[in-house]
Amino acid sequence: MAMTLRLTEEDNARLDELATAEGRSKQEVLRLALVDRWARLHKQEQLDEVLGRVLPRYRGLLDELGPV
Amino acid sequence: MAMTLRLTEEDNARLDELATAEGRSKQEVLRLALVDRWARLHKQEQLDEVLGRVLPRYRGLLDELGPV
Repeated sequence: MAMTLRLTEEDNARLDELATAEGRSKQEVLRLALVDRWARLHKQEQLDEVLGRVLPRYRGLLDELGPV
Repeated sequence: MAMTLRLTEEDNARLDELATAEGRSKQEVLRLALVDRWARLHKQEQLDEVLGRVLPRYRGLLDELGPV
């Protein structure tokens, strides 16, 4: 899959800086940035799912403890 | 600045998923992923700089405290 990515001068400078700092190509930096963002989305979804399952179970206890 | 970004099928699917989940264009998702990665690089550099400046000042105290 190829797509044309349009970057502002500022964002292109950031990409250059990252590529230099990481010793990676701009392609690879963008790929890793994408994979990171995708992994964070899934971590957030998993956390939401676990909290949605666990919090109701402890609601009574949490209510007894009162506000922090 | 325009560049051609080549993505594997898997990475392209991740990008599609992010765009849908965030309600943003693929261009915008990539831009935000890039800016996030750049911000993290700078936070890490700032942390390294502060630790490099602060830790030596407390070396004597840390040595007295001994290993954790």
